[in-house]
Amino acid sequence: MPSSTSMACATFITLKTIHKTSSTTMVRAFSTLMSPPSKAVFYESHGPPDTVTKIIQLPPVEIKPNDVCVKMLASPINPSDINRIEGVYPVRPPVPAVGGYEGAGEVHSVGSAVQGLAPGDLVMASPPSTGSWQTHVVRDKSFWHKLDKGTPVEYAATVTTNPMTALRMMEDYMDLKSGDAIVQNGATSMVGQCVIQLAKLRGIHTINIIRDRSGSDEAKEKLKKLGADQVYTESQLNVKDVKSLLDNVPEPALGFNCVGGNAASLVLKFLRQGGTMVTYGGMSKKPITVSTSSFIFKDLSLKGFWLQNWISSGNTEAFREMVDYLLGLIREGKLKYDMELTPFSEFHTALDKALGKQGSQPKQVIKF
Amino acid sequence: MPSSTSMACATFITLKTIHKTSSTTMVRAFSTLMSPPSKAVFYESHGPPDTVTKIIQLPPVEIKPNDVCVKMLASPINPSDINRIEGVYPVRPPVPAVGGYEGAGEVHSVGSAVQGLAPGDLVMASPPSTGSWQTHVVRDKSFWHKLDKGTPVEYAATVTTNPMTALRMMEDYMDLKSGDAIVQNGATSMVGQCVIQLAKLRGIHTINIIRDRSGSDEAKEKLKKLGADQVYTESQLNVKDVKSLLDNVPEPALGFNCVGGNAASLVLKFLRQGGTMVTYGGMSKKPITVSTSSFIFKDLSLKGFWLQNWISSGNTEAFREMVDYLLGLIREGKLKYDMELTPFSEFHTALDKALGKQGSQPKQVIKF
Repeated sequence: MPSSTSMACATFITLKTIHKTSSTTMVRAFSTLMSPPSKAVFYESHGPPDTVTKIIQLPPVEIKPNDVCVKMLASPINPSDINRIEGVYPVRPPVPAVGGYEGAGEVHSVGSAVQGLAPGDLVMASPPSTGSWQTHVVRDKSFWHKLDKGTPVEYAATVTTNPMTALRMMEDYMDLKSGDAIVQNGATSMVGQCVIQLAKLRGIHTINIIRDRSGSDEAKEKLKKLGADQVYTESQLNVKDVKSLLDNVPEPALGFNCVGGNAASLVLKFLRQGGTMVTYGGMSKKPITVSTSSFIFKDLSLKGFWLQNWISSGNTEAFREMVDYLLGLIREGKLKYDMELTPFSEFHTALDKALGKQGSQPKQVIKF
Repeated sequence: MPSSTSMACATFITLKTIHKTSSTTMVRAFSTLMSPPSKAVFYESHGPPDTVTKIIQLPPVEIKPNDVCVKMLASPINPSDINRIEGVYPVRPPVPAVGGYEGAGEVHSVGSAVQGLAPGDLVMASPPSTGSWQTHVVRDKSFWHKLDKGTPVEYAATVTTNPMTALRMMEDYMDLKSGDAIVQNGATSMVGQCVIQLAKLRGIHTINIIRDRSGSDEAKEKLKKLGADQVYTESQLNVKDVKSLLDNVPEPALGFNCVGGNAASLVLKFLRQGGTMVTYGGMSKKPITVSTSSFIFKDLSLKGFWLQNWISSGNTEAFREMVDYLLGLIREGKLKYDMELTPFSEFHTALDKALGKQGSQPKQVIKF
């Protein structure tokens, strides 16, 4: 993942440089444009995020001619952010580091050579990069994507990971047409909610599998309101022939799995001959088990999706076109999803919720 | 599988017709060309092959103008033949039926309109079809593929299933180049032996996984003589990093699995980032278990291979070109594999061996 790694390095080289040169910054203060000090979620070693992270104040950073300083407004806590801090993510930023990956904010100040961005503009990190959990971020102008004023900032802050995953997964594996069907588990997740709505917009049916838990009836209703054709709890699918439940929905050729274990097997059961299941998460922490006959006689294919591969492709223009498409849908009210906004001062409460310490919770989004 | 089914029906419609009209055949005996009576492995209901099959004599069949009557010389007992008799194969010939699928023989007599085939010619069923376990088979001339005189009949009788599977699996999933590597389990199987030799001919390395059993050292030596680069028993691969064993062999991009369970996991472990594992069998009767991270972060793809799909494609010409390519290699001594030839009179002994009742045995080939 060369591009991501190099971006990450850029951030932390800046950070280290400041530490080394802080004794000289006073001298250059009047000749150099500087950022405000940045309050940041900082960690010096990998480990449990609630233990290793602390909020610190980072000293001001020089704003070079092509740099843009952004006052961050919102940034989500994604499972991958947690894995990065734990040190178990395949792309591992070197420590010390500032947490976070996605985010959006308002331009605070710009370097002398920057055109097209001005203080007050709404921007987002695109493609995203590590270090978004702080009040002020200074990065090259090319890092920032300018947004329409009417864009809800919490959506701009979250669009590049989950909605983008939903969009790409629907595009990259087969040519879906109106009238086709998709089956997915983990349907209440942010990706799941996006899949339902993006499918609905294209006339594609969705069969959705959710966990058995209190409140599953409400969850079903909610997903149906988003456009889900069918929603089942796992226990409802303990039948010999799940396809008898399909009624007028065709057998799906494409399935999405973010759970693993039994929930992945249920996706496979629904798939039609020659279908494909794409795994993009493993919430149950259980592996995927597949029969030999599923491969040979049912001709199923199993693949994986990792958005990082798209991000690492370096095609920023295409990436931003997708972002704009999704944000357009959001502004039109055609795409929405659950979030809980939490003030930055309560970061560790939001982190605990994201870590699952308070049961099932909506996506936690830090508001700076 | 329309083409296979219709072929099967053709055979059995003939068979039923004979039963119905046997009282009248005498009358027409002098005006109609008839086959000799055929001694056949016959079953009237699906079930355990050693219980439901019996050797019977079928009455002579009319040889129509475009028919060719072949005196069968050799036919193998494949696992799929056993599954067909058990009634657990997805393509299920209607009962009563004659067992067997592949086979080769010598032309005994030809219908009045047949050109290009004459008594004494060596031919094989291509693509194969049900009903090869009998001494005489009458089918349309298009069913038979004429072979060079020097072709060993036991190879002609077995080439369409296992060697063809090896050939197609090496062609259909990626563009392998000289210097690339393949990993496979079940390497002592007939497909496994063919994969080793076909790979060697193209400069492709093979990493081979075999069972732990007495005689595994001899099995290793044998596979190495065929051209295997590396051969490991499963227990030798109980190491943290199987790739440290690779030495000068590159990480394989393609893996073949005919075992399932742990042996499938070992194939996955060897595969390089973005690699593909193709499942074509499940000898262990255990499913395939895959971690979520294998899909997401290692970007592995899992697929299945079923030769029936190639056969059902109806491209007889392409199929025969592949057969000729493989038989050419066989005649040149570049492709060989273990078989045990058993006289038809000892069919049930061979069947017991094929059913695994006498431990591990080479492929059983009936000699008529």
